[in-house]
Amino acid sequence: MTVSVPDFVQALDREDPLGDFRQFFSLPKGVIYLDGNSLGALPANTVPQLERRLREEWGDGLIRSWNTHDWVGAPRRVGDKIAHLIGAGQGEVVVADSTSVNIFKLVLAALGARPGRNVILTEAGNFPTDLYVAQGIAGLLSNIVVRAVASDEIEAALGDDVAVLLLTHVHYKTGDTYDMAAITRRAHASGALVIWDLSHSAGAVDIDLGGADADMAVGCGYKYLNGGPGAPAFLYVAKRLQATLRSPITGWFGHAEPFAFDDGFCPAADIGRFLSGTPPVLGLMALETGIDLMREASRDLLFRKSQALCSLFIEEIDARCGGHDLVLVTSRDVAKRGSHVSLRHPEGYPIVQALIARGIIGDFRAPDILRFGFAPLYLRFADVWRAVDALRDILVTRAWDEERFRTRGAVT
Amino acid sequence: MTVSVPDFVQALDREDPLGDFRQFFSLPKGVIYLDGNSLGALPANTVPQLERRLREEWGDGLIRSWNTHDWVGAPRRVGDKIAHLIGAGQGEVVVADSTSVNIFKLVLAALGARPGRNVILTEAGNFPTDLYVAQGIAGLLSNIVVRAVASDEIEAALGDDVAVLLLTHVHYKTGDTYDMAAITRRAHASGALVIWDLSHSAGAVDIDLGGADADMAVGCGYKYLNGGPGAPAFLYVAKRLQATLRSPITGWFGHAEPFAFDDGFCPAADIGRFLSGTPPVLGLMALETGIDLMREASRDLLFRKSQALCSLFIEEIDARCGGHDLVLVTSRDVAKRGSHVSLRHPEGYPIVQALIARGIIGDFRAPDILRFGFAPLYLRFADVWRAVDALRDILVTRAWDEERFRTRGAVT
Repeated sequence: MTVSVPDFVQALDREDPLGDFRQFFSLPKGVIYLDGNSLGALPANTVPQLERRLREEWGDGLIRSWNTHDWVGAPRRVGDKIAHLIGAGQGEVVVADSTSVNIFKLVLAALGARPGRNVILTEAGNFPTDLYVAQGIAGLLSNIVVRAVASDEIEAALGDDVAVLLLTHVHYKTGDTYDMAAITRRAHASGALVIWDLSHSAGAVDIDLGGADADMAVGCGYKYLNGGPGAPAFLYVAKRLQATLRSPITGWFGHAEPFAFDDGFCPAADIGRFLSGTPPVLGLMALETGIDLMREASRDLLFRKSQALCSLFIEEIDARCGGHDLVLVTSRDVAKRGSHVSLRHPEGYPIVQALIARGIIGDFRAPDILRFGFAPLYLRFADVWRAVDALRDILVTRAWDEERFRTRGAVT
Repeated sequence: MTVSVPDFVQALDREDPLGDFRQFFSLPKGVIYLDGNSLGALPANTVPQLERRLREEWGDGLIRSWNTHDWVGAPRRVGDKIAHLIGAGQGEVVVADSTSVNIFKLVLAALGARPGRNVILTEAGNFPTDLYVAQGIAGLLSNIVVRAVASDEIEAALGDDVAVLLLTHVHYKTGDTYDMAAITRRAHASGALVIWDLSHSAGAVDIDLGGADADMAVGCGYKYLNGGPGAPAFLYVAKRLQATLRSPITGWFGHAEPFAFDDGFCPAADIGRFLSGTPPVLGLMALETGIDLMREASRDLLFRKSQALCSLFIEEIDARCGGHDLVLVTSRDVAKRGSHVSLRHPEGYPIVQALIARGIIGDFRAPDILRFGFAPLYLRFADVWRAVDALRDILVTRAWDEERFRTRGAVT
């Protein structure tokens, strides 16, 4: 593709204070990667760091590294590093398990803290694992029910039977976001606890858990945090709630003294009580490298660039892709969207495939959503412009109409 | 240490058909590592393999690798490789979560399948996480109770109120093992399901889950399987039970079609229903390398060498460490023990520290247990002999009496 990027876009890159970060990622040649909201890119430092740490800490240190390299402290240490990105305090975040397992733990912890209430309230069309885990809990505890309503009906559905409200901050499909502080306030007024799923926001969207008086949150390590495929997830519990909430999965790493090997469970006094099994040390190492890199960028710049990338994309779609049945799904209001933009098109699937064939990786979500994620650390404004240019060309030439783009089977 | 190893021990190493495997591990110089039952050693291939796969699959493949490198299939693929080591069939094992989380899932699945029964039966002094997780479930479901009895009282405690028996096959402290087939038969006769925790046996002890008509099992990836610190765990569910048992943690990877993104949970028809969140791909890669290496050894040779290492250790302790208050805890009967040997001594803690100071890494378990693990792939008979020689010297010279060995704080 030798399309010439307009001057104003080149200027955006020249003046981008985060422009230097791209060199710290190993990105494949010829690819414009607009799927960092699904799986973040590989930081250049991750493989060398892993290599060094595995040789030193596992190979040479062996069992001793639980102490000498503080593997024991890794879930809290990396959690504290994430805290900075989501407006949480020190000692309020740990890295543990998967997002699904963390949702399970926190929803049950919330239900335990609201014994008179029996409803898990959530959004219909929320990310499937959030819905599934809630459904599984309702299957486990016969008195519990899941109430799933449209996003604009959440507030009205906050009756006095709602124990916990489980919402994803940035919607995985639409890219729209909730007003965390307002919803939390409303839920608290109704007596419910709130769990925020930050999977599609942590590392790309301004989050202030403390400022929103948030109760609990979970999030994903392998999207904007660049922790690698299946990276361990994180969870947040506000300090004020830690002493009263109990995790249902009382594994030995949630014990006050795991290495006392007592027969009876006694939960850690702090956020550590939400750990369960032995921490995934390899995954923690890779995640830590990704987060350390992100922490070198100013939070403000990070979030502002995310917005600017999304805005440029929407403006260029508006300006150059009209008349082709493409509909913007995500909000135009920067305050109401995350860091990915979704479009709707009846031929969404083959269009996404045609883009991928040109090295522009976004993804498709049934039935008709084209989804493009804008990771602020490694994307250039020129990438955004080129992606829209390719999309325009595919639409104009109906390149998506080739048979090879219509074959199903891709995960993305 | 320039002690000369006797001829008969040198001959054992010369004639060891697994002797060549040691070169495929990165072991630190000057260390005799007798703690592979706690954390396995680093296979030499793990770092290069991880480096290659991370660059190719994550760095270049990015999101596409869920299909092109079959990350989606990794939990089942690596599970099938483990199946070979534990006498399970293809499609009966998946790699998922931690041992603790897997115990949680399987105990609740068992309780769901035995609705008229309310007891989780287990061994008092079982590995803490097994006890803790059971206690947590009893805290979650008010009708469920945990009955923990001594190992020789298990059979008598199998009343008609027992839904599930949760036992660790090889005891983490004593090294003693249960007769899996006999106990399973007895439990089935009483109407209970059995979950075997194979953490201290998989990869070092002959296990025949199929032959024992076992129902369910869990196990650890970071001990004898050499998957690395905090490696993902595995779980086994017999084919005959898969359609009826339900995991309580219904994350999206346990769905019949995770990438259909349906709102309603529908469990996978196969062992995949016991997956929960996104699989830990990095951990799976490292674990797969460890297991691939182990699969190059014949099962029979592996298990026979484990026994021979333990036997030599016990014989040498008998012959050379008498008169120093050292008591053998583990059974002398090879059929009744696993692949580690435990000794009791009132000064167990400083003795283990004194051994570590000489490069002989075993571990200590309160109040007085010295524990030595014998991993068949990388230990030499000469290592065993040298370890006993050092122990003898420490006992004879009372080297353990130094102040520096009495300071507490080590994890091992």
